[in-house]
Amino acid sequence: MFPISFGSDNHSGVHYTVISAIQQVNTGFCPAYGDDPLSQDVLAQLEALFGGDCKADFVMTGTGANVLSLQSLVNSFHAIICAESAHINVDECGAVQKCTGARLSPLKTPDGKLTPGLIAPRLLGDRDQHHSQFRIISVSQSTEYGTLYSLEELKALADFAHQHKMYLHIDGARLANAAVALNTDLKSMTTDIGADIVSFGGTKNGLLFGEAIISFCPELTGNMRFFRKQCNQLFSKMRFIAAQYEAYLDKDLWRTNAKHANDMATLLAKRLADIPQIKITQKVYVNSVFATMPKAWINPLQEKYLFYTWDESKNEVRLMCSFNTLEEHINELINSIQALAG
Amino acid sequence: MFPISFGSDNHSGVHYTVISAIQQVNTGFCPAYGDDPLSQDVLAQLEALFGGDCKADFVMTGTGANVLSLQSLVNSFHAIICAESAHINVDECGAVQKCTGARLSPLKTPDGKLTPGLIAPRLLGDRDQHHSQFRIISVSQSTEYGTLYSLEELKALADFAHQHKMYLHIDGARLANAAVALNTDLKSMTTDIGADIVSFGGTKNGLLFGEAIISFCPELTGNMRFFRKQCNQLFSKMRFIAAQYEAYLDKDLWRTNAKHANDMATLLAKRLADIPQIKITQKVYVNSVFATMPKAWINPLQEKYLFYTWDESKNEVRLMCSFNTLEEHINELINSIQALAG
Amino acid sequence: MFPISFGSDNHSGVHYTVISAIQQVNTGFCPAYGDDPLSQDVLAQLEALFGGDCKADFVMTGTGANVLSLQSLVNSFHAIICAESAHINVDECGAVQKCTGARLSPLKTPDGKLTPGLIAPRLLGDRDQHHSQFRIISVSQSTEYGTLYSLEELKALADFAHQHKMYLHIDGARLANAAVALNTDLKSMTTDIGADIVSFGGTKNGLLFGEAIISFCPELTGNMRFFRKQCNQLFSKMRFIAAQYEAYLDKDLWRTNAKHANDMATLLAKRLADIPQIKITQKVYVNSVFATMPKAWINPLQEKYLFYTWDESKNEVRLMCSFNTLEEHINELINSIQALAG
Amino acid sequence: MFPISFGSDNHSGVHYTVISAIQQVNTGFCPAYGDDPLSQDVLAQLEALFGGDCKADFVMTGTGANVLSLQSLVNSFHAIICAESAHINVDECGAVQKCTGARLSPLKTPDGKLTPGLIAPRLLGDRDQHHSQFRIISVSQSTEYGTLYSLEELKALADFAHQHKMYLHIDGARLANAAVALNTDLKSMTTDIGADIVSFGGTKNGLLFGEAIISFCPELTGNMRFFRKQCNQLFSKMRFIAAQYEAYLDKDLWRTNAKHANDMATLLAKRLADIPQIKITQKVYVNSVFATMPKAWINPLQEKYLFYTWDESKNEVRLMCSFNTLEEHINELINSIQALAG
Repeated sequence: MFPISFGSDNHSGVHYTVISAIQQVNTGFCPAYGDDPLSQDVLAQLEALFGGDCKADFVMTGTGANVLSLQSLVNSFHAIICAESAHINVDECGAVQKCTGARLSPLKTPDGKLTPGLIAPRLLGDRDQHHSQFRIISVSQSTEYGTLYSLEELKALADFAHQHKMYLHIDGARLANAAVALNTDLKSMTTDIGADIVSFGGTKNGLLFGEAIISFCPELTGNMRFFRKQCNQLFSKMRFIAAQYEAYLDKDLWRTNAKHANDMATLLAKRLADIPQIKITQKVYVNSVFATMPKAWINPLQEKYLFYTWDESKNEVRLMCSFNTLEEHINELINSIQALAG
Repeated sequence: MFPISFGSDNHSGVHYTVISAIQQVNTGFCPAYGDDPLSQDVLAQLEALFGGDCKADFVMTGTGANVLSLQSLVNSFHAIICAESAHINVDECGAVQKCTGARLSPLKTPDGKLTPGLIAPRLLGDRDQHHSQFRIISVSQSTEYGTLYSLEELKALADFAHQHKMYLHIDGARLANAAVALNTDLKSMTTDIGADIVSFGGTKNGLLFGEAIISFCPELTGNMRFFRKQCNQLFSKMRFIAAQYEAYLDKDLWRTNAKHANDMATLLAKRLADIPQIKITQKVYVNSVFATMPKAWINPLQEKYLFYTWDESKNEVRLMCSFNTLEEHINELINSIQALAG
Repeated sequence: MFPISFGSDNHSGVHYTVISAIQQVNTGFCPAYGDDPLSQDVLAQLEALFGGDCKADFVMTGTGANVLSLQSLVNSFHAIICAESAHINVDECGAVQKCTGARLSPLKTPDGKLTPGLIAPRLLGDRDQHHSQFRIISVSQSTEYGTLYSLEELKALADFAHQHKMYLHIDGARLANAAVALNTDLKSMTTDIGADIVSFGGTKNGLLFGEAIISFCPELTGNMRFFRKQCNQLFSKMRFIAAQYEAYLDKDLWRTNAKHANDMATLLAKRLADIPQIKITQKVYVNSVFATMPKAWINPLQEKYLFYTWDESKNEVRLMCSFNTLEEHINELINSIQALAG
Repeated sequence: MFPISFGSDNHSGVHYTVISAIQQVNTGFCPAYGDDPLSQDVLAQLEALFGGDCKADFVMTGTGANVLSLQSLVNSFHAIICAESAHINVDECGAVQKCTGARLSPLKTPDGKLTPGLIAPRLLGDRDQHHSQFRIISVSQSTEYGTLYSLEELKALADFAHQHKMYLHIDGARLANAAVALNTDLKSMTTDIGADIVSFGGTKNGLLFGEAIISFCPELTGNMRFFRKQCNQLFSKMRFIAAQYEAYLDKDLWRTNAKHANDMATLLAKRLADIPQIKITQKVYVNSVFATMPKAWINPLQEKYLFYTWDESKNEVRLMCSFNTLEEHINELINSIQALAG
């Protein structure tokens, strides 16, 4: 129906066990808005997975997960520090500003990653009633460049945040891919490093829709459910998100899917590296490959495959793999490239 | 798994042809965010169904549909007139106020229905820079009391709105039920009476999720897509809403489902009317039955069936039917009531 | 320059001791934004006047005082109960909704006054994540109808609020007039009855500009100063508000001015009562007189005097007195009316 | 009462002709909120001063002027480009974000000045529904660094804005100082270069309070008066702002005051330049002097004079002059510095 896509991990459909779980829960009547045993049970499973001392909630979209994670911790006079390349800064049409009224304070980074060293100078100037009060450090794991924070780097950011009476938020739309790449578990990457609020994405990794927010400071984020309704993220037929997450957690499907996506990206990068005119521009950790290629190749390839130009000035493209990218898709792309390379 | 529910039409699951449509479209890759041919095609079908001279958009939830319909037409200094019982006034946790900053101006009504006569006195006082400027009349069709506006009543409201430089919004979460009850089509009830913006609900009538907004003033609502993203209502894997609506429109499934729900409510009301201690408190037009019963019956019944007390002071309950309410569910409820009646 | 006005107490100018205070403080340099000893000193005087266990802040306008009093205690998912006639509901162009995102829940009242009995039924329905959470009861003392809450009535509202985990806000744009009319002091009418946050107006009672907010729950309203800046209510040359309030408190100028305005209204009402065609429609407690008169009189009078028609349907007008209304102004108005009465 | 201040131009008081104007208008009654002939007349004078084809409005504060200038042209999904050092970005506690919901997109600049060259690359990435739509270029004239845009530079920015369907906003809190420094008039610096909306500050140049907004696209900013009320910037006793501006315009007091302040800064810079340990860090155009000095000098000087450290890492201080800075104040400061220099 559509061409092969390396455009986004949301160009993929739904994993068959997830579709199957939706079907199986589609029986009879069920209380709405999360007041059903399945939703309660799967949220408890999620909380256990993240170490137990936390509170999980379901929302509908990745933007919604970010908005609500932040909204539950900020007021309009707060500032949120993020990388200039962060999804919340560039790809959400100002949803955070509209919903929270707060200020985003974006920092230029070489690789999409914040460090205490980058943040510290920014904190200097802003103190009194004339200035937004710094409240959150927001990172994406993995980042929009496909780079990764090590556990040590995350811990350093959490410690730095807490020393300055701030909180650490992790945009985990691709948290599964990061866990695979770091060969770690979700608890180690969030609870143990001192994160305060985290999203655990599903849509980009094989679900139809649905994201989970995990709060490690539930005493502060107790108003989440009201904000969730106000921000249009309360789903009525909640059992259908719960069923998807049940399937996602079962036998670590989230990990299987993410590992496959990461492996495909590694393979793709390896194959691309053989082509002399192509240069991989970011080290490949997760499921994205950033590469430059001759300008003349881009249009012909985009007629056959879906993918985005990331930086037109450098002829840099982004190629995303996902749970349903196949080796044959990669072969086909490479063949097309080799044909162009002559 | 759960008891029989007369609690809400969102306690029901998903119609099997809708689930099937989701499965069928789950193949290969597809551009996200509505940039796919299926989404474009189904939106065009929707536009045709409403008469052609309009613009359709998909959103995720009923609250989202209301927020965005209003947001696309108001600024923060505007006022929105609605019935005190309107969903936007009482059941959305202030989402409209949060997202738009505008003022809701609720009017007390006997039956959930606004009239020009009720609205006119409210318009008198508010004129200048000290006052929110009246901009929208928002009605629910059918209303939260299960009552209906006739086509003439809707036209009178639209005309009144336009005479006062206002717009008519219809919260159509149950527009299908209204169309069935009025034995009319969607165009006659919206385009032809002069509505300006309308939602056409799916979730309460057999879809998994998804609502459509139909704008009859697309030159005014051209910023909808930006607000949709900002208000967390842009779905990434849009083909899966489109596929549901395709199934919903095919052979008028929306009408079949709504007719069934309405018929079940009529049957339920008829059966309840035989019980002397029960009094039907609102004429039954669509899929809800409002009734008073002896206080002592309510708790025992709620242990076996899901339903809500609507007005505790009057021992009034609301019983909702839906596309998957069966005659045997009604029989069972009536049997339980008769057992209590002795 | 302008005709005699009974239009509003803000049609009056500035009391001469207040102008004089502005002049006297206009010397040399002074830290801005309240970081000066005079501002600190006058705020402390205000706190003492209200009983000491409170925190005073200066803002610029009456609308600003209301917005900030409420903003410091609500979040966007909260609801604020007020009379339908409240200034925050009808005369501030939706400023509260825009700035706080919260929901106003207006109640119809016979005389502009809320009671626990009017509020209690409204609280019933709204409990869970679908509903704005009731947080504030907001009253105006004196009300927009010139009516007054007795100390007992205020205490009953404060107690009711606290029993329901709500707070009591008093819009005190005319708190001085109320204190005079009740023959009480500011502490008795606020601290002692259990108010949580109160404004103490100056502009309508002889100041050039400036209002004071008194918080009795400073542990909750500690973010006021950030909201004050965000809501455009932080004045740079703050010493000039402080100097005005110093003059206002000195020898109880606030009381003298308010007493004069109240006395003039009483006199005006007495004189109007002698005219058979005129009917006083609200008992006169403070500085406003509401009266009906023959429709044919209104336009000719408005050509000579500034005043507003309050309710066109009843030919009801509002006549305001202020600190600079003179007995001769009243005589002149009465003469004009008698000429019309023939 | 307070020490000599080089801290801010709002540490100064009110020019005596302005105080005198306030007194003179303080007579009798006057319609409020701008519905008086004086306000209408002075607004017309302002419009004439800016070339006639524009609409002037009074607001209360500088932050309010910026918020409303922007609010009248943006919606929440818009982005506003400004220098990282802009007052709207760093000194208004996020007021623009709170009030408009829009995104500020700050750019790093060497000297507080934007150029088309700096802006163009930022525009590339943001196009579709995922991105805030660029709508405004906001500059400060003079800038927060005391630097100036030439008329050609302003015209280039306005042209660039219009080519990209954007608008040019000028934060003119110190527009008077800029006009003096450029030896030009207000029309040439705004109307003639193609500005769309401009504030013309008064508070920092000898007024008690009050700012003017001049819109050159009144057909777009017609809702300003509603936003002004909602954003708490509508002053009731408006004649007292009008009277100040009348005095401000009379015999070009705005120019006289600004010229004095600029001249004092030039003198101060000249005297500082004689001290070898001090380095002037920004060319002095208007009324501020930025300079580095030995760290050990700063505290002792701040015990005697009010001024701010601008950049602690460089021991850079900011010294502001104003309409009431006297040569003897400068002499005294220089003497103190020379004493430290030994």
